[in-house]
Amino acid sequence: MSRGNIYVVTAPSGAGKTTLVRALLAADHKVQLSVSFTTRAPRTGEVNGKDYNFVSREEFERMIAASALLEHAEVFGNYYGTSQPWIESMLSQGQDILLEIDWQGAQQVRRLLPEAIGIFILPPSIATLEERLRGRGKDSEEVILRRLSAAREEISHVDEFDYVIINDHFDEALRDLVAIVRAERLKLGRQSAFHQAMIASMKG
Amino acid sequence: MSRGNIYVVTAPSGAGKTTLVRALLAADHKVQLSVSFTTRAPRTGEVNGKDYNFVSREEFERMIAASALLEHAEVFGNYYGTSQPWIESMLSQGQDILLEIDWQGAQQVRRLLPEAIGIFILPPSIATLEERLRGRGKDSEEVILRRLSAAREEISHVDEFDYVIINDHFDEALRDLVAIVRAERLKLGRQSAFHQAMIASMKG
Repeated sequence: MSRGNIYVVTAPSGAGKTTLVRALLAADHKVQLSVSFTTRAPRTGEVNGKDYNFVSREEFERMIAASALLEHAEVFGNYYGTSQPWIESMLSQGQDILLEIDWQGAQQVRRLLPEAIGIFILPPSIATLEERLRGRGKDSEEVILRRLSAAREEISHVDEFDYVIINDHFDEALRDLVAIVRAERLKLGRQSAFHQAMIASMKG
Repeated sequence: MSRGNIYVVTAPSGAGKTTLVRALLAADHKVQLSVSFTTRAPRTGEVNGKDYNFVSREEFERMIAASALLEHAEVFGNYYGTSQPWIESMLSQGQDILLEIDWQGAQQVRRLLPEAIGIFILPPSIATLEERLRGRGKDSEEVILRRLSAAREEISHVDEFDYVIINDHFDEALRDLVAIVRAERLKLGRQSAFHQAMIASMKG
C-alpha cells in the first residue's frame, strides 16, 4: 500500500484559503481534511468529529504530555491541534490529508513530517487583502489593522513553503490547487510504491 | 524575468506520448515544443523550423564539435539533436519548453540542465503496449518484437524521472500531464522570481 500525501495549506487571513480548500475537497474526493482537536466550545451547527474533535482541557494537555500532537497552539485561551496517531493512521492507509494551519503549525508539521507538501496562498496585493478584510464589514478599524499586521507576519514565511498560489482569480487559483494535489500524486516515489508490481513486470 | 521551465517527456513507443504532448500543447499555450535539429531528409508536409530544423551532416557535426547540443543521437544513420543556445535563449525569456526524447537524451539533458523536469509515460501494461503496437497493423512480427524489447529497455529507466504518468485512460493521463506542467510553475523558486517585487512588498 502506498502512503498518502500530506498537504499543508497556509495563508494570511483574507487570502481566500478556506473557500479554496472547500472547493478543492468538492473537486477531489481523494483528499480529506484533517479534523483538529480543540478545547473551545462547539458553535451552533458544529459537529463533533467533523468540524473539530471537541475535547476537555485536561484531555488536550494529556495529548501534549504524550507527544500525541503533530502541531498545536493556544489561541485566545483555547487549544487547537492535530493528532499525530490519527494522521499517521490515515497516511498509512494511503489516504491523502490536508491541513489548514498557520505558519507556526506548518513549521511544527515539517519538523515531524518533512515530506509534508507546503502550499502558501497569497492575495494579489496587500491592498486587495485590506479591501477583502474591510469588505466583510464586521470588524472594527483596530481589528482590521491587527489582522493586516498578522497577515504581513504570515506572508513573511512564504519562503518556507514548496508552492505559492496567488489568489487573484478564484477559478485560476482553484485550478492551481487542484493541479498541485494531482501532480504530487504523480511523483516517482508515490507512483513506484503504488504501482510497484506493475512497473516491475514491465521492466522485464 | 523569471526563467522558464524545461520539461522532458519520455515514453516507450506505443505509450501514447506524442498524442498526449500534442493535446497538452493545445490545452496550454504557455509551453512550447522544442524543435530538434536533424540531418534526415524532410518528409512530405514537414516544415523546416517547425517540425525539425533540417541541416546537413557537416553542419550537425560542427554543432557537435562546438558543444552546441544539449543532447543528440544517431538513429539509422541520421543525427537528431537539441540546440543548447536555442533552449537557453527560450528559457531566459521565460518560455517553458518541452522536449520529447528517449531516456538517453533525457540523461544528457539532466547532466547539463539538472533543473529539467522529467516526466515518464507508461502504458498500463506490457500487454496493452503489445496490443497497441500490433493494432497499428503496419509492422512485421520482427519489428514488433524489436519495439517491445526497446520498450522494456526504455521502461527500465523510469526511476530516473521525477513524475510517472500511466496512460490507461487518455483524458486522465492528459489531466495528469497538464497538472504537472501547471504545478511546476507554482513552485516557490519560480513564483518568487516571477512575483519578486509583489511578494517583497507584502512582507512589509
